[in-house]
Amino acid sequence: MPIAIQRFDQRRFDPEKMQKLNLFETPRFFFDVYCLLPGQAQKPHRHADSDKVYAVAEGEVRVQIGEETALLRAGEAVLAPAGLDHGVDNPGPANAALLVYMAPRP
Amino acid sequence: MPIAIQRFDQRRFDPEKMQKLNLFETPRFFFDVYCLLPGQAQKPHRHADSDKVYAVAEGEVRVQIGEETALLRAGEAVLAPAGLDHGVDNPGPANAALLVYMAPRP
Repeated sequence: MPIAIQRFDQRRFDPEKMQKLNLFETPRFFFDVYCLLPGQAQKPHRHADSDKVYAVAEGEVRVQIGEETALLRAGEAVLAPAGLDHGVDNPGPANAALLVYMAPRP
Repeated sequence: MPIAIQRFDQRRFDPEKMQKLNLFETPRFFFDVYCLLPGQAQKPHRHADSDKVYAVAEGEVRVQIGEETALLRAGEAVLAPAGLDHGVDNPGPANAALLVYMAPRP
């Protein structure tokens, strides 16, 4: 079977809501690109048994993990461990794109 | 606890061998940056129960997954599923850097 190549620099923005582009998904993890226009967000939520990484590919985002928040720029990544509330939003003014890994896939 | 921010655009090249920079590691996955000078490689190997993603952040690499090989450029990613031989090398002439995600951590 030929190797399936996915582009992680692909983008799709929609004024309706943050877009999730799935690149790979297995029973063990998923790898998505999230595309956020200014003002868009993934609201805080938690996964009891899955760890997630947010890695900023483009723009700037504000992340919340547990009680803490931080501003992340392109090239920066954070871990949202299982059991902690986590969320992300794009305060603008630029578009933002995140590489998001979660394991195991919930 | 403050949020630990890791830079995935960090690099460390060493003529001795390919360098692995660990960004995050949990019982559920690891997320590394691999830095390969021209001619350096991660030799083909397999993991019985872990899936891996190679995502090219910089340069070009040749990947092998099972019996197939492909040339990947910056912005491209592939999945090496559990049980399949996989490896990567940098044919040059540029340096190469990969984002490597594996779940679960073996």
